[in-house]
Amino acid sequence: MKIIDKINHAIQSKKTFFSFEYFTPKTKEGVLNLYNRVERMAALEPAFVDVTWGAGGKTSKLSVEISGAVQKYYGLEVMMHLTCTNMSKAKLSETLEKVKDTGITNILALRGDPPIGAKNWEKCDGGFSYASDLVKFIRDEYGDYFGIGVAGYPEGHLESQDKATDIKYLKEKVDVGADFIITQLFFDVNEYISFFQRCREADIQCPIIPGLMPIQTYSGFKRMTGFCQTKVPQEIIDTLEPIQSDDAAIKEYGVQLCLEMSQKLLDNGAPGVHFYTLNLEKSTTRIIEELRLVSASQSRRALPWRPSTLPSRSQEDVRPIFWSNRPKSYIARTMDWDDFPNGRWGDSHSPAFGDLKDYYVVHHGLEARAKKENRQEMWGENPSSVDDIAAAFVRFCEGKIVRLPWCETPIQKETLSIMEELIDINRRGFLTINSQPQVNAVPSSDPKVGWGMPGGYIYQKAYIEFFVSEENLRHLLGCIDQFSSLTYHAVNVEGKTYSNGGDRYVNAVTWGVFPGREISQPTVVDSHSFMTWKDEAFQLWLDEWASLYQEDSLSHKLISEIYEGYYLMSLVENDYINGNIFEIFEKLAIPQKMSS
Amino acid sequence: MKIIDKINHAIQSKKTFFSFEYFTPKTKEGVLNLYNRVERMAALEPAFVDVTWGAGGKTSKLSVEISGAVQKYYGLEVMMHLTCTNMSKAKLSETLEKVKDTGITNILALRGDPPIGAKNWEKCDGGFSYASDLVKFIRDEYGDYFGIGVAGYPEGHLESQDKATDIKYLKEKVDVGADFIITQLFFDVNEYISFFQRCREADIQCPIIPGLMPIQTYSGFKRMTGFCQTKVPQEIIDTLEPIQSDDAAIKEYGVQLCLEMSQKLLDNGAPGVHFYTLNLEKSTTRIIEELRLVSASQSRRALPWRPSTLPSRSQEDVRPIFWSNRPKSYIARTMDWDDFPNGRWGDSHSPAFGDLKDYYVVHHGLEARAKKENRQEMWGENPSSVDDIAAAFVRFCEGKIVRLPWCETPIQKETLSIMEELIDINRRGFLTINSQPQVNAVPSSDPKVGWGMPGGYIYQKAYIEFFVSEENLRHLLGCIDQFSSLTYHAVNVEGKTYSNGGDRYVNAVTWGVFPGREISQPTVVDSHSFMTWKDEAFQLWLDEWASLYQEDSLSHKLISEIYEGYYLMSLVENDYINGNIFEIFEKLAIPQKMSS
Repeated sequence: MKIIDKINHAIQSKKTFFSFEYFTPKTKEGVLNLYNRVERMAALEPAFVDVTWGAGGKTSKLSVEISGAVQKYYGLEVMMHLTCTNMSKAKLSETLEKVKDTGITNILALRGDPPIGAKNWEKCDGGFSYASDLVKFIRDEYGDYFGIGVAGYPEGHLESQDKATDIKYLKEKVDVGADFIITQLFFDVNEYISFFQRCREADIQCPIIPGLMPIQTYSGFKRMTGFCQTKVPQEIIDTLEPIQSDDAAIKEYGVQLCLEMSQKLLDNGAPGVHFYTLNLEKSTTRIIEELRLVSASQSRRALPWRPSTLPSRSQEDVRPIFWSNRPKSYIARTMDWDDFPNGRWGDSHSPAFGDLKDYYVVHHGLEARAKKENRQEMWGENPSSVDDIAAAFVRFCEGKIVRLPWCETPIQKETLSIMEELIDINRRGFLTINSQPQVNAVPSSDPKVGWGMPGGYIYQKAYIEFFVSEENLRHLLGCIDQFSSLTYHAVNVEGKTYSNGGDRYVNAVTWGVFPGREISQPTVVDSHSFMTWKDEAFQLWLDEWASLYQEDSLSHKLISEIYEGYYLMSLVENDYINGNIFEIFEKLAIPQKMSS
Repeated sequence: MKIIDKINHAIQSKKTFFSFEYFTPKTKEGVLNLYNRVERMAALEPAFVDVTWGAGGKTSKLSVEISGAVQKYYGLEVMMHLTCTNMSKAKLSETLEKVKDTGITNILALRGDPPIGAKNWEKCDGGFSYASDLVKFIRDEYGDYFGIGVAGYPEGHLESQDKATDIKYLKEKVDVGADFIITQLFFDVNEYISFFQRCREADIQCPIIPGLMPIQTYSGFKRMTGFCQTKVPQEIIDTLEPIQSDDAAIKEYGVQLCLEMSQKLLDNGAPGVHFYTLNLEKSTTRIIEELRLVSASQSRRALPWRPSTLPSRSQEDVRPIFWSNRPKSYIARTMDWDDFPNGRWGDSHSPAFGDLKDYYVVHHGLEARAKKENRQEMWGENPSSVDDIAAAFVRFCEGKIVRLPWCETPIQKETLSIMEELIDINRRGFLTINSQPQVNAVPSSDPKVGWGMPGGYIYQKAYIEFFVSEENLRHLLGCIDQFSSLTYHAVNVEGKTYSNGGDRYVNAVTWGVFPGREISQPTVVDSHSFMTWKDEAFQLWLDEWASLYQEDSLSHKLISEIYEGYYLMSLVENDYINGNIFEIFEKLAIPQKMSS
């Protein structure tokens, strides 16, 4: 989707938007940290994020990689920076082809800084001198394929003769095809206001988004304003100087200043605010939250899962429930699909799941968030019994630990209503890795389980998925026929299966009914996908958990035995009105082995 | 679908099935009457119907035509008879091609009677002498495409040496590819039982369905049993002779005898019963009803509308609501579609509706049922005001007349719950031609609105569709914005449109949630289809109603004015839980013009 369309839609529906800029980190660890930040900040629902261009060589390749991964895995609209620095036309073409392949549809076209070592701007051989040339090149080569943003300089560009010439160049950029303008950082709101007026007087009619940088440290602030020769109001200097050695106070002032500036900008007609995050999370998040921009957008989930912004997935509206706690793995494994299930899952042509690609993001992302030591701390230093293992699952349900190999994020708030029951069955050896409570005709605006357009009703069949020993499975299967509204499917690592679902079944477990629409059923339990998922789910025992311990240790042996002997079971209570998925467990003569 | 699969399924699930044989009538009127009977008897849900082969020339063409039309329009599985009489291989091939084109997938392969004029059986040039040759020919040429039934003769074939030879020939027919056997009529149940045993002893293992003929008249009975040399137990002769001139008594005895025989046959292991209806409806219907075979199957509607048995439509599971009272017209207009909406309507590629073909069945069928005089009696001898017209709509809602130009069948029983409201708005000039009440989570087994497999829940959004004057439309549109859960679409014959549904909308108005399945949403309101339907709906004013009156009459002029000036409006109450579609009419200052 083009960012300009999102911006225009926000303007038309009188909603304030915001966006985040990240820079391309220089280290591997920096990249992993960035992914984790971006994922968390995605929950704030920025209209878009942009990633700076690591001019020259290795880092520019990384810019494409990061931009692509964020677009692909985090459901965010990404705008990648692109500069003329050291970029010949041939190189630009090559880059734009790659960018297109990744699914990115938005470019921020900049002239860029002078090449490293050069004092002044120098155009490279076969390259461009002006951002407007780059805009024109992209439009000439790709027509309307890319959305294009450009930079605006409220205080005038460093190298420009005067503000009037500056506006002339800006007008040129817009005239040859830019969709909107993001301003360079400033600290005097009046600069934005007068810049905006000059633009409009010069007949630059596109949206002009103010760019703000929350002050993070005094030294950083001095460096940045010095480098950009930013005008800093005396009041700000007077406030900062006395607290310059108090990092916390500086940060706090940075937040308050940004809040104040944002409010003033919005009051003066800015359509939204752009934040130079410096890859830092807390200040920007606080500003967004205190501006109260976040809750409104969060309550309007389009679907119960985060839709992808990749053009190829624009029609996708059904996913199997199994990957709901590992969505990046699902996206990675379905990247090669030509089209995505739309309307109903069963019509898709026996989709084949690929192997896990993009290991870097999907797997190492997890590893970076939960290093070996952290994971061991969460899941047990030396588990020596099934009870020790179950205890980790219980801790996860209780919210005491934030991650399991099968769950990349802490337990969902909608699960609170069934937390006690989940804890109970985990204590009894049914090790849950996925669940959703029953929902019957709850308004689509509900903050916990709601999604989709207003005026609709949301439904869920209760679902739980767990690992279970063969013995406990036998207890369960011994009485499951008494519970006629349950659909079950149990399978061990070798594929031995017990199921009452028939050869091929697809069970819609989340759906919504909306005014003037067909029924939307975004989550299903599908027998084919379950067989693919079980391989991944079993493998995670070994890759994520057993691998924490020495190969000859008791803990390693214990987990290997679970891997070999346990079943993965998917259980649906089809009666979402009168059913109770936990009733069957109450009938079992399996005691809680752990004390409460 | 192959009939043998239906039979085997019934046997496995221990359900008794039944089937009806019709003969190919000799007159046009006979054909129209047959269609009407078949349509009514379809409601009994026979496992299949079969249509006899009008051996030679014109009538055999008619057999294909009738079989095809019944398969196409009445949602019945049809088995067409085919005989060797006067049929060369070339002719058989030609016929089978045609049969295949019509969508028929089941053939009853017979040798047939001797050619007219011939005393004994004579094989024709390039033809076959035995039914087994015909079975083999069909299998050789078409593989598994056709299901094949053959005839069995419990009392031995007229021309056979002895019963043992007869069984030998029968075994041959089964060995070369017949799926099942239907017996010739008999009146002594023991003949079936011993025939069945002889078959099994000869290793004929397929289903053997007893064929029964309800006695309709004494003379007919005598003729038939004489012609077939059927053995008639003395007891039957003794009962019939004294009442031979009392037609009603004969018929009644025929029903009782058949009931008794059916029960005995079923008690002795017959999987179902086949009825030689002689194209008569009442006796067979009574027998089915009194055997209590009907209610069970009727309550198990697979979908809210009658699914087609045509192979090309096997995946079809969504239809626009507009044609729900004219399903044959819908089938005719969509015959050329390559594939049918499945899962959701919106995924279909802007389907183009064809013109009304098969005029004979779709249109003349209606005409035959409601001749001009009848229609005039129902709809008014000389309507002279809009009130007179509205009065006919009111009579239809009250169940006092059984047909309107837009409604081929009497008002549905599910509509009873909103009958008063419908009558009220018709009296006020909103002339309803389609409607369904709101339904919220009613069990799928519900006798009125239920459909689909057991254990599900059924939902409906309230729907009404009506003709309305421009003035009344203005009243309605004047306050419709106060009713935010309504979706409306009004259009006049020229296409002038008022709608709040957006450019293209598809609104699911009937859906069901079932254990272990995706959501089923068989009925939608679709904006594109509505524009096609409105042409048909407006045209019916002229073709069916105005045409009853002289062109220069007041009545003709009145209806032409409605045709030109009225709007057709579709109205959906999207809140199927708390909404009330009739509330808006209560707000209107439009009085009931007619007395109650």
